[in-house]
Amino acid sequence: MNTDSHPAAPPWHVTQWFNSNGALTLDALRGKVIALHAFQMVCPGCVQHGLPQAQKIHAMFEASDVAVVGLHTVFEHHAAMTPVSLEAFIYEYRLAFPVDVDAPGADGGIPLTMAAYQMRGTPTLILIDRQGQLRWHRFGQVEDMAVGAAIATLIKEPV
Amino acid sequence: MNTDSHPAAPPWHVTQWFNSNGALTLDALRGKVIALHAFQMVCPGCVQHGLPQAQKIHAMFEASDVAVVGLHTVFEHHAAMTPVSLEAFIYEYRLAFPVDVDAPGADGGIPLTMAAYQMRGTPTLILIDRQGQLRWHRFGQVEDMAVGAAIATLIKEPV
Amino acid sequence: MNTDSHPAAPPWHVTQWFNSNGALTLDALRGKVIALHAFQMVCPGCVQHGLPQAQKIHAMFEASDVAVVGLHTVFEHHAAMTPVSLEAFIYEYRLAFPVDVDAPGADGGIPLTMAAYQMRGTPTLILIDRQGQLRWHRFGQVEDMAVGAAIATLIKEPV
Amino acid sequence: MNTDSHPAAPPWHVTQWFNSNGALTLDALRGKVIALHAFQMVCPGCVQHGLPQAQKIHAMFEASDVAVVGLHTVFEHHAAMTPVSLEAFIYEYRLAFPVDVDAPGADGGIPLTMAAYQMRGTPTLILIDRQGQLRWHRFGQVEDMAVGAAIATLIKEPV
Repeated sequence: MNTDSHPAAPPWHVTQWFNSNGALTLDALRGKVIALHAFQMVCPGCVQHGLPQAQKIHAMFEASDVAVVGLHTVFEHHAAMTPVSLEAFIYEYRLAFPVDVDAPGADGGIPLTMAAYQMRGTPTLILIDRQGQLRWHRFGQVEDMAVGAAIATLIKEPV
Repeated sequence: MNTDSHPAAPPWHVTQWFNSNGALTLDALRGKVIALHAFQMVCPGCVQHGLPQAQKIHAMFEASDVAVVGLHTVFEHHAAMTPVSLEAFIYEYRLAFPVDVDAPGADGGIPLTMAAYQMRGTPTLILIDRQGQLRWHRFGQVEDMAVGAAIATLIKEPV
Repeated sequence: MNTDSHPAAPPWHVTQWFNSNGALTLDALRGKVIALHAFQMVCPGCVQHGLPQAQKIHAMFEASDVAVVGLHTVFEHHAAMTPVSLEAFIYEYRLAFPVDVDAPGADGGIPLTMAAYQMRGTPTLILIDRQGQLRWHRFGQVEDMAVGAAIATLIKEPV
Repeated sequence: MNTDSHPAAPPWHVTQWFNSNGALTLDALRGKVIALHAFQMVCPGCVQHGLPQAQKIHAMFEASDVAVVGLHTVFEHHAAMTPVSLEAFIYEYRLAFPVDVDAPGADGGIPLTMAAYQMRGTPTLILIDRQGQLRWHRFGQVEDMAVGAAIATLIKEPV
């Protein structure tokens, strides 16, 4: 067992789910490695790099080992990225993994999950280990090889 | 002078302009080659290929020779791609050329300009010569080299 | 007719031809636009950008309008890039256009054609117009769209 | 400890080393994961995908965990890919890891190491675990993410 000390991943604040039968929670996914990909649909770096990478993770690893979750964290252009727009985006980009909508912050500020994870922007990739601990946090573009290695390392840890 | 017979480019039906001081018309642009790029903001092929190519045309050719015009032809997911969403998209993707919103078709059908040009989908690239005639119509991904050659050929024709 | 004054393209100094029945000369190609691509087989920029672009030119334009010629200008690592190595390279990379070997310079210096054209290195793309005049000289990576436009412009000039 | 049964990696047959102080052997590297990349310098798939991937492995993982070794397996165009040509190639492509030349097979046939590993062509990527066992064998282009995951999995295994 991994005996290092890592912070627990904060719970998610969600207003809506796509591609999911009911709400997903950290507790329900306990035992799997979670790849949490935070994005905005009108974010060039997300569309070009982050989301294709999340799709690749979803396709490459076993669903029994890794859960990929998209988190739509709208912190700008709120009126431009409503759930109805997101739904069309998910359809057209053929996103196959569950996507949730982050709960809006007070007064149009940073959404609640984004704030709880102290994200600096989008795209952000978070890895959570089988015990629900935060283990990786990257803002911006990350090499596929590094992501593959990080996920495989967490998979090998005991539950 | 080019004495071949080509159809005149149909007029544009526009409800709104971005990146433009006032409405642009075929008549006002007469004398220039026009690269008309039809797209939808939630269209992967447009985002990955069509719009970067339109940006490249805009950056490479002289404004006195070539006018690049984006045409937002929403023929699906209407509620997802409203002008307020398009405005954020134009800003985030740093589109530098004028973009207009195609007038909706009756009953949510094909927008009016898209129909008048008999476009089959997005992305579509249309080239109009200095005399306002239709000279090139391509649906889907097109090689940069072919586009550069086609535009340069039209530039060399007398007004 | 193009009445600007341009220098005549210097003749080629060639020791060997591949993909050609007999030697090609500027005189024999007079009337066509010539795209002369100078490369070395062990040059990463040539392999990644220059040669694929030359292949694209060869595939895109009519043979009656444009002649693509590869020029193997070995100015370093002479023993590493002999004609026998070049022959295997041409075969494996499926180069479909004529390629010639530039005549060695004195004492292992700059090869003769490379020197006559004052090239600064590889890859270099030279365009010669239908009248045998030098019209374009680019060292390094060049946009496909710009190359397509430059060639099409020369094609439109009268012989 | 990994108790599955895997075949031992066959010894290497080498005529020459580059980027290495003296010969490397499987025994000397025991305890590390070995990424053995078989290539030919005149092989487009190696130049475009295999070698950049090997460079990435070399840059990304700790030298104490992973040893990257290039294996030049000339099975065609022998006269075109001599060690003197390979040396220039290694220099121009800035290969930073040790590269060895596979010992020629009898009568110009398959080189000895290539034959011992039953490789089908180039590029081929072989992973050998910390105990010297064969664990991964891929011919052709492989996803960076899959390679990163495979190497990280082997790193986590005890020596």
